[in-house]
Amino acid sequence: MILDGKLVRDEILNDLKEKIKDNNYRIKLAIILVGDDEVSKIYIRNKENACKFVGIDVEKFVFSSDTKQSEIEKLIDKLNNDEFITGIILQSPVPNNIDFDKCCNLILPNKDVDGFTENNIYNLYLNRDTILPCTVKGIIYLLNYYKIPIDGSNVVIVGRGNIVGHPLSLALLNLNATVTVAHSKTKDLASITKNADILISATGTPHLIKDNMIKKGATVIDVGVSRVNGEIIGDVDFLNVKNEARYITPNPGGVGPMTVAMIIDNLVCMYERRINNG
Amino acid sequence: MILDGKLVRDEILNDLKEKIKDNNYRIKLAIILVGDDEVSKIYIRNKENACKFVGIDVEKFVFSSDTKQSEIEKLIDKLNNDEFITGIILQSPVPNNIDFDKCCNLILPNKDVDGFTENNIYNLYLNRDTILPCTVKGIIYLLNYYKIPIDGSNVVIVGRGNIVGHPLSLALLNLNATVTVAHSKTKDLASITKNADILISATGTPHLIKDNMIKKGATVIDVGVSRVNGEIIGDVDFLNVKNEARYITPNPGGVGPMTVAMIIDNLVCMYERRINNG
Repeated sequence: MILDGKLVRDEILNDLKEKIKDNNYRIKLAIILVGDDEVSKIYIRNKENACKFVGIDVEKFVFSSDTKQSEIEKLIDKLNNDEFITGIILQSPVPNNIDFDKCCNLILPNKDVDGFTENNIYNLYLNRDTILPCTVKGIIYLLNYYKIPIDGSNVVIVGRGNIVGHPLSLALLNLNATVTVAHSKTKDLASITKNADILISATGTPHLIKDNMIKKGATVIDVGVSRVNGEIIGDVDFLNVKNEARYITPNPGGVGPMTVAMIIDNLVCMYERRINNG
Repeated sequence: MILDGKLVRDEILNDLKEKIKDNNYRIKLAIILVGDDEVSKIYIRNKENACKFVGIDVEKFVFSSDTKQSEIEKLIDKLNNDEFITGIILQSPVPNNIDFDKCCNLILPNKDVDGFTENNIYNLYLNRDTILPCTVKGIIYLLNYYKIPIDGSNVVIVGRGNIVGHPLSLALLNLNATVTVAHSKTKDLASITKNADILISATGTPHLIKDNMIKKGATVIDVGVSRVNGEIIGDVDFLNVKNEARYITPNPGGVGPMTVAMIIDNLVCMYERRINNG
C-alpha cells in the first residue's frame, strides 16, 4: 500500500487553512536564503506556496553568497525581536563562509520552525515538549495516519544526519520504538535492515535499498533525495521493493510533501503557544 | 576474558596522580548531596577516595532533604563563580522537591563533570568536542583498552536512561558503531540482543541478560546495579553468560570503577582546558 504524502498533506493544509481563517490567526514566516543553491530555491518555493495556500504571510530575505556572517546574525536578532514574526527558517545549506549551526542557534527556540536549535534538540533528547524537526514530524504523522504502530516496533534508520536520521532516532525512541541507526560504516547493511518492521532511509544514495534487504511486510519510508540527470531518485528502489513491503512511500510524493505540511503545522502550533502564553 | 575495571581504573588513577603531582595541578571538586540516600553516600565516598588518592581536593555540601531549590541554585551560582572550583557534581537522585535537570543545567558547561548539561549533550549530539558522561566515557575507555573494535560493530544498548543508555547511544554512534537501543517496550528482547557484537545492559533489572540472549563470542558490558538483600546484582547473569561471551565485565568490578576513574579524568581534562585557555 502506498503511503500517499500528497493526499495527507492536502488534508492537513485544508484543515489548517480553515483553522487560520476561523480564528483570524496572523502568522508570518521569515525565510533566510544565503547564496543561490537551485535546490534550496525549489524548497523555498514549496514552502511559500503552502504558506500562501493556508493564509500565512512570508517575508523572504535573500543574500548573496559572499554575505558576512555578522549580517545574517544581525537579521536573526531583528527577527527574534519582531513580534509579528512567528517563525524563522534559515535555509540550509549555506555557503562555507557562514557557520550554519551558530546562526541557526541564534534563532529563539520558540521561533525555531525547523526544531534544530540547541534547546529544542535537548528537549527532544529528554523527551520533553519541543518543536520537532519538520521531516521527523512528517514521518511520524504519516505512520500514525496509516495506523502503522510505532510503540514496540523495530525501526531501522539508515543515515545519521542532523536534519533527519539523528533527530528521528530520538523521536522514535521517545515513542517506544526499538531503534537501530545504521550508516555508511555499517557492515552488512542488509542483515540490519531485514530486522526492521519500519525501515527509514535518509542517506541520499540512489536506490540503496533493494527488495532483498527488507523483511516481507515491512513499512518502508524513503527520505533520500538524489538528483540524477535532473530526475529525483530516492534511496529506495521503489519498483523492486514495493512487492515486498506492506506499506511504502513513493519518492517524490511521500515524505517531501509531509515536511512542507509540518512546517505549516509547526508555525500554527508556535503561534497558538504564543497567544496562549499571553 | 574478564574486562577488569579495577585493574584499568588503578592504572588510570596512578597515571593521573603522577600527572597532577608533576605539574602541580590545583584541582578542586565540589560535590552537592541533597537528602540522605544511602547509595548516594557510597558513591560519594568512592569519588572522595579517588580524589584523595590522586591529589584532588573535595569540598562537600550536604543538604537536608527538605532544602529549598533556591538554596541549591544559590550554591551552584557561587561555585560557578569560584575560580578555585574545577568541577561540580550534583549527586543524583535528589528529593522530589528539587528539579534535578533545572539545577544541573545551572552548572557551567565547563564545570559540568558529569557531562549532563544542555550544552554538553548538544555537543555530544553534534559529535563535537564535549565533556562525556563518566560512565559512557568509562565504557568506551574499557573497550579501547582491551582493543575491542567499536567502529563498524553492532552495538545493542538495553536501557535508555539519561545517565547511561541514552548518552552512550549518541557517543557510540559518533564512533561509527551501528547502534540499537532496546528498552522495556522492546518485543522479543533476545532476538535483538543476539545481533550484538557488543551488548551493553543498563536497566537495573537483576539478571535480565541470560546466555541464550547473546551471540557466541560477543562482548558483554554490565552497567546495571540492583541491590537485593544488601548484595549488588547486575543486569547480566554472569556465571551463565561468561561461557558464551568472549569479553565480559564482572559486576561489581567492571564499569563502576571505570566511572570513578573517568570523573578524575574529566576533572583533569577540564582543568587543563582552563589553563590552556588562559
